Amino acid sequence: MNFLEERIVRDGQVRPGEILKVDSFLNHQLDVALLDEIGKTFYEKYKGRGITRILTIEASGIAIAMMTGRYFQVPVVFAKKAKSKNLDGELYTSKVHSYTYGKDYDITLSKKFLTSEDTVLLVDDFLAVGKAMNGLLDICRQAGAKVGGIGIAIEKGFQHGGEKLRGEGLDVTSIAIVDSMGDDGSITFREQ
Amino acid sequence: MNFLEERIVRDGQVRPGEILKVDSFLNHQLDVALLDEIGKTFYEKYKGRGITRILTIEASGIAIAMMTGRYFQVPVVFAKKAKSKNLDGELYTSKVHSYTYGKDYDITLSKKFLTSEDTVLLVDDFLAVGKAMNGLLDICRQAGAKVGGIGIAIEKGFQHGGEKLRGEGLDVTSIAIVDSMGDDGSITFREQ
Repeated sequence: MNFLEERIVRDGQVRPGEILKVDSFLNHQLDVALLDEIGKTFYEKYKGRGITRILTIEASGIAIAMMTGRYFQVPVVFAKKAKSKNLDGELYTSKVHSYTYGKDYDITLSKKFLTSEDTVLLVDDFLAVGKAMNGLLDICRQAGAKVGGIGIAIEKGFQHGGEKLRGEGLDVTSIAIVDSMGDDGSITFREQ
Repeated sequence: MNFLEERIVRDGQVRPGEILKVDSFLNHQLDVALLDEIGKTFYEKYKGRGITRILTIEASGIAIAMMTGRYFQVPVVFAKKAKSKNLDGELYTSKVHSYTYGKDYDITLSKKFLTSEDTVLLVDDFLAVGKAMNGLLDICRQAGAKVGGIGIAIEKGFQHGGEKLRGEGLDVTSIAIVDSMGDDGSITFREQ
């Protein structure tokens, strides 16, 4: 097991409805050293790709994106989930369905911060069905930006979002891929 | 001028309604090196205070909190603005009015991640009227946690949130305090 799989086994909790709670280190309380290790892992994988920007979506993706951006020394940009009065100017928008919140929402990104000159590394804490990631990819397409890779902390392999993205030729690195979770709280990781 | 004031003058934009746009480096696109410098500044100021946790509110506060947490080597926790299905268990909640979004919202924090054993450093990107910060302070009071200090990147001095907090005896460090913004785009910083 790698460092993240070990941490999931130690501190993660399996809940009914195929929910994996990792809120003590990944998406509510944030373990700085662990997230730094995640960022470093993405850097080691994608450092040769000419990455010019790290793109993620608020909120918990921001923590991983910052630690990744530190290694790449490139700007981080995050898509917003609601339109605020302060977000003026030209925007890329894409519609995303959230299973966690049970509704559709728009994600937006200012056109200033992503162009056809960019090669983007997309990062997020979770990849399940892939709705949020597809929204980010849609924004990259609108911008004409090249996708250099996708870095995910935890992929729910049984929900097939990663499989679809890889099938489209995208280079997805998930540090932990959960293939199944048992009613007894057991977790099976994919060998990789 | 310090490093943040210089950056605000160079890349910030004054908009009608006393809006200061800093989305190219602080709260939409994120300049990793600048945010690291902000985190380091808070560490230099509060390193002797026995800080056990960094507390902020999603979304842009997370970036500053992560860079601050790196220096302190303590966990970062962020209050959430909406209740998701995954946030079960006991929660602290507080009501906050957002001028940016023009509505009230609840912020929530899992009780697991803040207790009376904690000495907290509160951080955020902006302090204006202070509504979000008061929500975080309310949560600290509910937890019985000690507030070791408050670190703010940009304080809008003319909106008096910082003045009120300092009047209550809180130790607030704002790296840049904007005392006024002119229709011509000029910005006056408070000497400190």
